[in-house]
Amino acid sequence: MDSRRNFIKQTSILGLSGIVDPKELLTAKSHEAQSPKEKKWADGSRLVISVSMQFEAGGQPDNAESPFPKNMEEGFIDLPGATWYQYGYKEGIPRMLDNWDKLGIKITSHMVGSAVLKNPDLAKEIVDRGHEAAAHGMNWSTQYAMSYEAEKKFIEDGVKAIKRVTGFDAIGYNANWLRRSENTLKILQELGFKYHIDDLSRDEPFIIQVNQKDFVVVPYTIRCNDIVLIEGKNFSADQFFHQVKAEFDQLYQESEFKKRQLSISFHDRIGGTPQMVKTTHELIKYIQNHQGVSFKRKDEIAKLALGDETTIRE
Amino acid sequence: MDSRRNFIKQTSILGLSGIVDPKELLTAKSHEAQSPKEKKWADGSRLVISVSMQFEAGGQPDNAESPFPKNMEEGFIDLPGATWYQYGYKEGIPRMLDNWDKLGIKITSHMVGSAVLKNPDLAKEIVDRGHEAAAHGMNWSTQYAMSYEAEKKFIEDGVKAIKRVTGFDAIGYNANWLRRSENTLKILQELGFKYHIDDLSRDEPFIIQVNQKDFVVVPYTIRCNDIVLIEGKNFSADQFFHQVKAEFDQLYQESEFKKRQLSISFHDRIGGTPQMVKTTHELIKYIQNHQGVSFKRKDEIAKLALGDETTIRE
Amino acid sequence: MDSRRNFIKQTSILGLSGIVDPKELLTAKSHEAQSPKEKKWADGSRLVISVSMQFEAGGQPDNAESPFPKNMEEGFIDLPGATWYQYGYKEGIPRMLDNWDKLGIKITSHMVGSAVLKNPDLAKEIVDRGHEAAAHGMNWSTQYAMSYEAEKKFIEDGVKAIKRVTGFDAIGYNANWLRRSENTLKILQELGFKYHIDDLSRDEPFIIQVNQKDFVVVPYTIRCNDIVLIEGKNFSADQFFHQVKAEFDQLYQESEFKKRQLSISFHDRIGGTPQMVKTTHELIKYIQNHQGVSFKRKDEIAKLALGDETTIRE
Amino acid sequence: MDSRRNFIKQTSILGLSGIVDPKELLTAKSHEAQSPKEKKWADGSRLVISVSMQFEAGGQPDNAESPFPKNMEEGFIDLPGATWYQYGYKEGIPRMLDNWDKLGIKITSHMVGSAVLKNPDLAKEIVDRGHEAAAHGMNWSTQYAMSYEAEKKFIEDGVKAIKRVTGFDAIGYNANWLRRSENTLKILQELGFKYHIDDLSRDEPFIIQVNQKDFVVVPYTIRCNDIVLIEGKNFSADQFFHQVKAEFDQLYQESEFKKRQLSISFHDRIGGTPQMVKTTHELIKYIQNHQGVSFKRKDEIAKLALGDETTIRE
Repeated sequence: MDSRRNFIKQTSILGLSGIVDPKELLTAKSHEAQSPKEKKWADGSRLVISVSMQFEAGGQPDNAESPFPKNMEEGFIDLPGATWYQYGYKEGIPRMLDNWDKLGIKITSHMVGSAVLKNPDLAKEIVDRGHEAAAHGMNWSTQYAMSYEAEKKFIEDGVKAIKRVTGFDAIGYNANWLRRSENTLKILQELGFKYHIDDLSRDEPFIIQVNQKDFVVVPYTIRCNDIVLIEGKNFSADQFFHQVKAEFDQLYQESEFKKRQLSISFHDRIGGTPQMVKTTHELIKYIQNHQGVSFKRKDEIAKLALGDETTIRE
Repeated sequence: MDSRRNFIKQTSILGLSGIVDPKELLTAKSHEAQSPKEKKWADGSRLVISVSMQFEAGGQPDNAESPFPKNMEEGFIDLPGATWYQYGYKEGIPRMLDNWDKLGIKITSHMVGSAVLKNPDLAKEIVDRGHEAAAHGMNWSTQYAMSYEAEKKFIEDGVKAIKRVTGFDAIGYNANWLRRSENTLKILQELGFKYHIDDLSRDEPFIIQVNQKDFVVVPYTIRCNDIVLIEGKNFSADQFFHQVKAEFDQLYQESEFKKRQLSISFHDRIGGTPQMVKTTHELIKYIQNHQGVSFKRKDEIAKLALGDETTIRE
Repeated sequence: MDSRRNFIKQTSILGLSGIVDPKELLTAKSHEAQSPKEKKWADGSRLVISVSMQFEAGGQPDNAESPFPKNMEEGFIDLPGATWYQYGYKEGIPRMLDNWDKLGIKITSHMVGSAVLKNPDLAKEIVDRGHEAAAHGMNWSTQYAMSYEAEKKFIEDGVKAIKRVTGFDAIGYNANWLRRSENTLKILQELGFKYHIDDLSRDEPFIIQVNQKDFVVVPYTIRCNDIVLIEGKNFSADQFFHQVKAEFDQLYQESEFKKRQLSISFHDRIGGTPQMVKTTHELIKYIQNHQGVSFKRKDEIAKLALGDETTIRE
Repeated sequence: MDSRRNFIKQTSILGLSGIVDPKELLTAKSHEAQSPKEKKWADGSRLVISVSMQFEAGGQPDNAESPFPKNMEEGFIDLPGATWYQYGYKEGIPRMLDNWDKLGIKITSHMVGSAVLKNPDLAKEIVDRGHEAAAHGMNWSTQYAMSYEAEKKFIEDGVKAIKRVTGFDAIGYNANWLRRSENTLKILQELGFKYHIDDLSRDEPFIIQVNQKDFVVVPYTIRCNDIVLIEGKNFSADQFFHQVKAEFDQLYQESEFKKRQLSISFHDRIGGTPQMVKTTHELIKYIQNHQGVSFKRKDEIAKLALGDETTIRE
């Protein structure tokens, strides 16, 4: 089921298929505003912002991908590359935690099991400060290539590590580079998860059927994501700012008449640098300066979606 | 035939081959303005803007190119990559359609046949809102390597899919990555096409002879093209804005005395993101704020070129 | 011989080796200004700007490097890539020629022999408008790997093509990607060339000994070069503007007490686009707004350097 | 030992784990300011800035990495690439030296032994102007793959070259691309070094145990580093400016209550260009405009860290 079709038809009925005087469009919009009930967030939020803070560093394998050149001779360990990851837990996460507190927002931290075990106090600190712990696999292995049983154990081990260290029962899942297998959703449903985020297809949460039961998709982003923009596309921090600001400006405008979600994502060793935390602070201050925006943990979003009959069902 | 030669000679006659006082140039320009008839658009437009909206998502093969790293093990499907494409038809095209309506412009949508069949309502919606459907092959196959017969069927199947779903008779063609074969133009002429766009050589339409008959080239762009700038060159949305703005500023200036066309191109899953639609809206608002600019579908441009004796013939 | 050593020692004598009050530095600078004679351009220019316009398109081999993806199957020609090059002579060079005239500057055009023969009227037009024709090889072959005899013929053929078409005797040389062989300079000296540009080592011209005779090096740039910044580094046009502006600002400041040259380089199909010509126009207007800047052809620079006893000799 | 844990707990005690009114945070901060003694620099500096100037050009092997395309046929030397390196000592270092003098700051120059021997006057000039000479290996060899004995000789040869030419006893070390071997630190301790910089894990110096003795880590940067940003990420100079400015702004803010170090790094042929020196000048002027910032050589930082009981010990 897809509400987009209705959205399109409705807009089309308003006479937009020919050349339109922009002034008439304003009238059309006012008209549209008269029946907005099916398009809004259940709790009255105008636009929901979901921030992720990936907790991965410390759990990576030797010679994991880093900004250093990939030209080392075989058989040696990239020692400075390892210190790049250490920065994630020694400086990055603590700095971001302080930033979230200053901004008064709660975020979702996708935690790799091996990273949690490596720095248990820090993992617990994240939860103790009121943030959500979500699962992100036991380690950095390639999940999509595992057998059903191996994958189930891989996911379960990660959840248990989070639970043991932080006391938090994770109900959300994120696969390494979003690359789930064909079995992942079934396993998550079996293990009691309520939502996953490995989907880029929409700017709002939606519900799918997994094992004949509802399962929520809280969409992720590669457009407002530090690893993609800063490390992958070589954006500078000010480009990151303008990119996410443009994303927000458009979604905020659309959210007047439609349920919209903005997702922003950070990684310990990337989003936790001084240049990025400074940028993120300014960005979120800008966003908070708008009426009706609401920063929510993804478990809150999943709950809202499940309890809302206007949620898209696919 | 090449009017550039005349243009150069004419300018040269005006005394520009030595060091020139800029004030004298203004006089030269005024002089030039006295015989502008051969350089203007037949309908009196000063500068023609042609916007493309590629409708491709949903028709792509498994593991088609996406922003995700190209490092998957063999034999697995890149599931999040597929959701990146789904975004194109679930959010991208609907958002762009609304944007074109708000801006009051009509565009040309190059439609891949398999994408049209996957989302027929959306394809029809594009046409119903007054936009042009142009052909873009039956699917994402490598057209330049096909035999004459295979290529002819490939093109014909795409046109038929568009016709059946939208009712539109496509008369324009665009090959995948512009890579036509040596036979493509002959086939297009045989099938009744009037123009193609797979040429970057000029900033105005021109006429070539194919099978001893006129065929229009409506030049495309890789300079103001989302897939090239955003995905290929890793531009941020604000770089895209400034890049196309500079292109417009120069062409608008040149269009005082010369027939000029500005081409801008968007793809469903790239140009349809919030950050890009916001940017595009501001860009087109800026352009629309200039006297004499005219947004035209490419079929309109081809028709204008065919009926204009000042059109360049090669 | 290297005047840098003197420069350093002189500055050092002024007491700069400890922590210095910036105000004292101003005094030091005034002192330094009292004997500036050995550091200035012979014709009294404060800062010399040298603009290159590479004339290469039309002479390239099939499937020459272009912005299109390098993923074509073997045995096919990249047809849209060819049109990207055609743009160089159909739009790029004519547009830049008009820009140089509007700005009232003369530039050096490094011409590939095969490109000259492909578009003789345009090559002649460049010279007729008062610009310098310099040699750039007979075609796009890999010059550094040629035998002495083959290379000599390769260079000579290019010069002859330029002479025959434009009437200009080229005295300057530029190798493909600056990659000369160990023999190139000797051959150039034998053929009567006065200078080459394939050297990035200084911000001012200098003289070397080749075959026991003076030969001028007019340094080139990859820092203010469209093919390096726009195609290689994926800069946007506004980044190009700010990059060259910063280069100018620094060199202009240094030129108060030292002979300095700023080199800027454009290629037909890259620097000749609307977005780049617009940008270049603004950039050169900015530069021209400073007292004492002088735009010179490289043959003029070579002549100045040869007649100036303060020119660095290596 | 890790003071981060305490920092986090302390912040947490201040009531930041729930949603917080930003006004209350100011109060919390004032409270925190009452016991800042353990978090400040021993000499009273608020924020310490450490600038590096790598002295490497002239010592590189043939065909060392440069901005030129990596597509040369085997067996030839990339002659223009060599001139790109020459720029480092002919223009780059002299220009940067003048810039440091104008700004009144002292920096640390990591010197490759072979580069020092190639340009001894320039190496001496660096030291004569009051800057620190630190070791950077005897040449560009791959240090991490050497045997213990070979590596020890490699490091020692470099130190001796520096001593012989400049008279300076280097006590700091930086490996090529930061890639030390498992033995490097032990060797450095044996040779009398006091600190190394090949670590990215913190924004402040810290002490480790090597051969049962204190050894200082003065962290380096790849975030405010010209070779990474300008050559690796293709940043423009203005992006470099904004990137380092954001880094400074955040660290300056944090330095109110915490010992913080900002590291900025330049290479002869990259940071010494006009566009980069102009940018760096503006950047450092901006930084100097803040109360309490102190530019220090890394040997000064190491000494401060060793004499400070609040220094982190790992």
